[in-house]
Amino acid sequence: MRKGKSTKVDGDDRIGETGATPTDFGPLATWVGFNLRMAQEASFEAFSHHSAAIGENPGRFATLTLIGRNPGIRQTELSAASGRDKSSLTPVVEDLVRRGLVERKRVDSDRRAYRLNLTAAGRKTLALMTRAARKHERNLDRIIGPRDKKRFIDTLKRIAAEIE
Amino acid sequence: MRKGKSTKVDGDDRIGETGATPTDFGPLATWVGFNLRMAQEASFEAFSHHSAAIGENPGRFATLTLIGRNPGIRQTELSAASGRDKSSLTPVVEDLVRRGLVERKRVDSDRRAYRLNLTAAGRKTLALMTRAARKHERNLDRIIGPRDKKRFIDTLKRIAAEIE
Repeated sequence: MRKGKSTKVDGDDRIGETGATPTDFGPLATWVGFNLRMAQEASFEAFSHHSAAIGENPGRFATLTLIGRNPGIRQTELSAASGRDKSSLTPVVEDLVRRGLVERKRVDSDRRAYRLNLTAAGRKTLALMTRAARKHERNLDRIIGPRDKKRFIDTLKRIAAEIE
Repeated sequence: MRKGKSTKVDGDDRIGETGATPTDFGPLATWVGFNLRMAQEASFEAFSHHSAAIGENPGRFATLTLIGRNPGIRQTELSAASGRDKSSLTPVVEDLVRRGLVERKRVDSDRRAYRLNLTAAGRKTLALMTRAARKHERNLDRIIGPRDKKRFIDTLKRIAAEIE
């Protein structure tokens, strides 16, 4: 169980684990940064449970999807698309190669560049993970509501593209 | 520079790093989970830059704020409030204690429980970090816009509280 679940951060309904004094969140209660982290961690943990059921690491899902959708994608492009810098992407790719899910080939014209493809096993794993991700997305959709979803995603995209 | 910044995920304006073929994000483009992670990572990285300027780790900010706002808070309550389970919170608290920012005392009635307080140095560091966080929040506010902010935060809180 995720301990954070038991504490609501909304000013008038905050019961700490002791059940006695409510926790004072101070400015965190109305700050975007803190609430973005709490939502992301709760969402990631929920998806981890769905992924664990198929023996996979949830952090691999976006990488597998991007390689599957873009056969021969270069590692630099994958890095840009997945928001991971080279130093955090390389071990992820190496793990996928070692486990036989991804195939890595050097680019003839540029010996420092790699092109990535899914193997048959990678496609199978991606299909299973996509099913788990769809279930997770339906749960998120139910919470957000169809009316607010587009605007919510647009705001998240603007933050990812513009914050500095 | 954050590589992800150069790639917009919005369907008609997706240019990969090669500048040639746009990256196909497939279902990720409209999925909440992926966009939540991209926004959180970009926001966290931006806050890291602000925090690095004062020599601090951005991951410590919420912990210091919660201890500062709730003198004598128990580690279990802090765990619930900060959304970290015990195994990830303990090393954070130990690091803060080692660096003289937080003081940890055993609870007399329960030898397994700890109460936490900021030291004078901890209060000074928290004041500096709060200033950096305010700046970061103003940047987020500018992106989100005052009209959408409340609804955006409410949605994040609902996700944190309800997703499973």
